[in-house]
Amino acid sequence: MKLLRHGPIGAEKPGALDADGRARDLSLLVPDFTPEWLSPEKLFALAAIDLSKMPRVPEGTRLGAPVAGVRQFVAIGLNYRQHAAEAGLEVPQEPVVFTKALTSLAGPDDDVQLPEGSEAGDWEIELGFVIGTQATKVSVADAIGHVAGYCLANDVSERDWQIKRGGQWGKGKSFDGFGPIGPWLVTRDELPDPQSIPLELAVNGETRQKSNTADMIFPVAEIVSYLSQFMTLLPGDVVITGTPEGVGLGMKPNPVFLRRGDVMTLSAGPLGTQRQQVR
Amino acid sequence: MKLLRHGPIGAEKPGALDADGRARDLSLLVPDFTPEWLSPEKLFALAAIDLSKMPRVPEGTRLGAPVAGVRQFVAIGLNYRQHAAEAGLEVPQEPVVFTKALTSLAGPDDDVQLPEGSEAGDWEIELGFVIGTQATKVSVADAIGHVAGYCLANDVSERDWQIKRGGQWGKGKSFDGFGPIGPWLVTRDELPDPQSIPLELAVNGETRQKSNTADMIFPVAEIVSYLSQFMTLLPGDVVITGTPEGVGLGMKPNPVFLRRGDVMTLSAGPLGTQRQQVR
Repeated sequence: MKLLRHGPIGAEKPGALDADGRARDLSLLVPDFTPEWLSPEKLFALAAIDLSKMPRVPEGTRLGAPVAGVRQFVAIGLNYRQHAAEAGLEVPQEPVVFTKALTSLAGPDDDVQLPEGSEAGDWEIELGFVIGTQATKVSVADAIGHVAGYCLANDVSERDWQIKRGGQWGKGKSFDGFGPIGPWLVTRDELPDPQSIPLELAVNGETRQKSNTADMIFPVAEIVSYLSQFMTLLPGDVVITGTPEGVGLGMKPNPVFLRRGDVMTLSAGPLGTQRQQVR
Repeated sequence: MKLLRHGPIGAEKPGALDADGRARDLSLLVPDFTPEWLSPEKLFALAAIDLSKMPRVPEGTRLGAPVAGVRQFVAIGLNYRQHAAEAGLEVPQEPVVFTKALTSLAGPDDDVQLPEGSEAGDWEIELGFVIGTQATKVSVADAIGHVAGYCLANDVSERDWQIKRGGQWGKGKSFDGFGPIGPWLVTRDELPDPQSIPLELAVNGETRQKSNTADMIFPVAEIVSYLSQFMTLLPGDVVITGTPEGVGLGMKPNPVFLRRGDVMTLSAGPLGTQRQQVR
């Protein structure tokens, strides 16, 4: 299934995409896609719903982040070799891990507001996944079983806050709205191989990032297993898996950062598309 | 008030300390100290309860973390000059910020389990505070009004995971049980000045850290205001404010780390005491 949430900010209702790619409302059956609705049993039950019989969501309705009640928003850094190179950093021996504030989560097409005075806003297209069942110290072989599904993500970053203010990256990643995810969560049964997803991001129509999750240094299964060695992953946790080369920070001869009015467009095959205007 | 939670892990009930310092059960009136119970209105209402009429909690009952449903667990690094020096790092120009996993939260006297093979477990006594009302871009003058109360914390750290595995600190701070807080949350009305709290930590009875929150580089009000510039603080968020000198990493001539069987004892005046055995 492709699970989504539709409606105004803070008042989203659950829904799903039908066979014709149209959004259907599920709020008569499901309160919201909170963590307990992402378990294998619940996803199995959701799949029994005949979407063609559920109310249509009007065209043009805003979509929110496809999951609600998220408790941890974890991000992997430097997970593509050429991105590490353009950032001037070594290819890591193990995943680099940081976190984003929960209120950075946003809908796929919501405006991105840069903080006042920001001169170093940047884009990062990424594969995201959402945890379905609690994971502590799981093996790589068992790891994928803990994933509920996948989504597209933009790890919006303010490089001055990320790099120049103490060295821990979360500051530049946590502003409200700096984590658009969606438009939907593709459940794992529909996407058996998360390591073959095309990723493409353009700014004002010019392609800046073009890659494929096949190029990730640490694939999803390794990330889940690795994280679970030092923390417990909870249902509903969102993990984004690092960005390929082509961010503004890495542009030659000089970095190019976001300006008010810029439009970021992202696409990722079955994970859908995003479009954000910078404010 | 001094709010607490008592009972087995995962089944804690809310309570409070009465005028004689004895724990009283509040579960007949309050479901749990989830974020919505930390608002100024709710705390005002809680203060109207005559604790002497509530059931006593039996002596020896385990205490849990004093707040439930925490969504963000934020930590400040290098907030005491001499600790920065012993860590071999510069005194920061602005707060260093990282996060701990939610499942690192634990009760004040719960055992601390080091990860398998750990050789660099360390202690960090800290002042913690809990957010009562949402805070976005608040001034230093308005900041304290967003704090529900204060608690003692041990920012247990695994230095190899913190430092040698990619440079982002969260890995060494996020193991299950690496964030004991409590025994209770002292509401702000009872502690108008959080910058005069004595902190003392001993390992196996030998004092290792002895300081006072008066020595913090960035006091609580500045931390709240600073964090709120790049993230939204939510009710129930726990923030710990950095540790003074005397951690194992800084010991001369060589670092001294935790071993199985060690006992950490922490005290912080009105914030109470903790005792953790290392497993």
